[in-house]
Amino acid sequence: MASELRVGVIGATGAVGSEILRLLEGKQWSTAKLKLFGSERSAGTSIVWRGDKVIIDALNNNQFVGLDVVFLAANSEIANQVAPEMAKSGCYVIDNSSAFRMDKTVPLVVPEINFDAIGDHTRIIANPNCSTIIMLMAVAPLRVFGRIKRIIVSTYQSASGAGRDAMIELEESTRAHLDGKEFEPKVLPHPYAFNVFSHNTTIDESGYNGEEVKMILETRKILGDPEIQVNPTCIRVPVLRSHSESITVEFEGEAPDVESVRKVLSSFGGVRVVDDREANHFPMPNETNGQGDVLVGRIRKDVSNPNAISLFACGDQLLKGAALNAVQIAERIFDLN
Amino acid sequence: MASELRVGVIGATGAVGSEILRLLEGKQWSTAKLKLFGSERSAGTSIVWRGDKVIIDALNNNQFVGLDVVFLAANSEIANQVAPEMAKSGCYVIDNSSAFRMDKTVPLVVPEINFDAIGDHTRIIANPNCSTIIMLMAVAPLRVFGRIKRIIVSTYQSASGAGRDAMIELEESTRAHLDGKEFEPKVLPHPYAFNVFSHNTTIDESGYNGEEVKMILETRKILGDPEIQVNPTCIRVPVLRSHSESITVEFEGEAPDVESVRKVLSSFGGVRVVDDREANHFPMPNETNGQGDVLVGRIRKDVSNPNAISLFACGDQLLKGAALNAVQIAERIFDLN
Repeated sequence: MASELRVGVIGATGAVGSEILRLLEGKQWSTAKLKLFGSERSAGTSIVWRGDKVIIDALNNNQFVGLDVVFLAANSEIANQVAPEMAKSGCYVIDNSSAFRMDKTVPLVVPEINFDAIGDHTRIIANPNCSTIIMLMAVAPLRVFGRIKRIIVSTYQSASGAGRDAMIELEESTRAHLDGKEFEPKVLPHPYAFNVFSHNTTIDESGYNGEEVKMILETRKILGDPEIQVNPTCIRVPVLRSHSESITVEFEGEAPDVESVRKVLSSFGGVRVVDDREANHFPMPNETNGQGDVLVGRIRKDVSNPNAISLFACGDQLLKGAALNAVQIAERIFDLN
Repeated sequence: MASELRVGVIGATGAVGSEILRLLEGKQWSTAKLKLFGSERSAGTSIVWRGDKVIIDALNNNQFVGLDVVFLAANSEIANQVAPEMAKSGCYVIDNSSAFRMDKTVPLVVPEINFDAIGDHTRIIANPNCSTIIMLMAVAPLRVFGRIKRIIVSTYQSASGAGRDAMIELEESTRAHLDGKEFEPKVLPHPYAFNVFSHNTTIDESGYNGEEVKMILETRKILGDPEIQVNPTCIRVPVLRSHSESITVEFEGEAPDVESVRKVLSSFGGVRVVDDREANHFPMPNETNGQGDVLVGRIRKDVSNPNAISLFACGDQLLKGAALNAVQIAERIFDLN
């Protein structure tokens, strides 16, 4: 297909949008004529991209006509407003918000896992929640060992999932704490310096929060298994941009041995096994920051259940958890790379 | 019994030892004639306690004679060397190290849970591992609902578990990170600033690390149930002195409802339920630092298993996880308070 795509990015100044721009800078297939769109607030400002100033346009008319693909890195409200119209103009829309994730007509895609969910007439594609992507990169390959019945996961989520301002708040509040100064959180509901807290999304009557419900429902949709059970506990930790997850995977039958799990994960694109028991070296956020791969380690048979294994996974929330996954979807659609 | 105890503390300058001293300062039953013992390095130095200088003696002869209770806040090697001799002199030894925890002749005690493990002739009492104590304070009360079959736990452990130097390293490396400066970790094997990593204890052939094995074996001993299954994943997070734990408890039969769990936990001494779904307010390290209670929240039926509930617990590693539990054991033995 097209060797040079006409690309648009909505929300280019945000944490995810700016990672998308950075990834596109290195892509030969990306046109030099990037179109950037933003809120009223950022409209008229500019971004330097490949050495040139690119002006950000306001999102208020049909400037999408003629674009091949638009990356939507805005909130659900904006996505709902603009995505259907863009799709009608014929361009692909890869949406990072949660607006269309559970829409039955919209595929929810991690390219390594379920790229085939994208049909010939698909134009809107939803990018899954970051915690879901990172978990499933570690878990989905294991289906070769038999059906997975249940996943129990506890997350160690970074500030970046709450956007750039949350990352700044983590740094500023930490500095204040070290200096013995007061700090009033504005972006997140709880003090973040040297603290952890339950994910700040609304808790429903079942007792699960919004982030956890996403992990449950999105897992079922991406794996195409409406029966798979997921029990997530989503927690924020004072880390800037990588999520970690402690995962226990229960199979319908007996669990595979560790060596087989390592082999399968090692040969799965986008996963890197970091599992050196002797050196006590396992996945860590400081080694995934800026990296595209999801790291997986602490692979072991669950000592409490012969049908289960446990592992620890870590991935850059802004890259594989968001921007990179979106860019990879475009690359697969247009058969680039 | 004695209304004024003659108390000794070994390892008074360490993170746990100094918390024990702080707790003793407020206790009427604690004698003004505190005896402090330390390594060759700290011998001869002094500590201010209740306004007076107390000299630290070297640990090299029978200075324990006449003491009622000695708090041992040193490593296992020292505990092995001195505890049996102290016990022979008739005094109670409450040991914070892991030296005697799995010794069949030594009770492993969380006073609220199994104080009755201490017999008339007991002189050495082991203080459990901090992660085990905090987990069991949240889990043990739930046995009123039926036998617990399996616990799946992921920890969010603080620097204090690795001692005072690790706490300083966390602060110093974080400051260096914020200032864009290099920092070479000396106390812990991995960078700690804005990072999380698997607990730095040796991994055995089962794939579990030393901290996790402690949680498995100590749980069985404290609960007196050699069959209970525990699957821990122990992770350090950049928090100074409180551990958090994401816990799933599987019962042999059907799980209790949330309101009943809240009621039982609320009436259990040493536990405080912090479970405000509407305000998104749950246990956090910054609210347990310096507090004796273990906070429990995020109480919910496990959506993936009708026999399980999930919850999130948080406790001060240096207090209920170590120093306070030890002091409470002494208070119960001597019927003080």
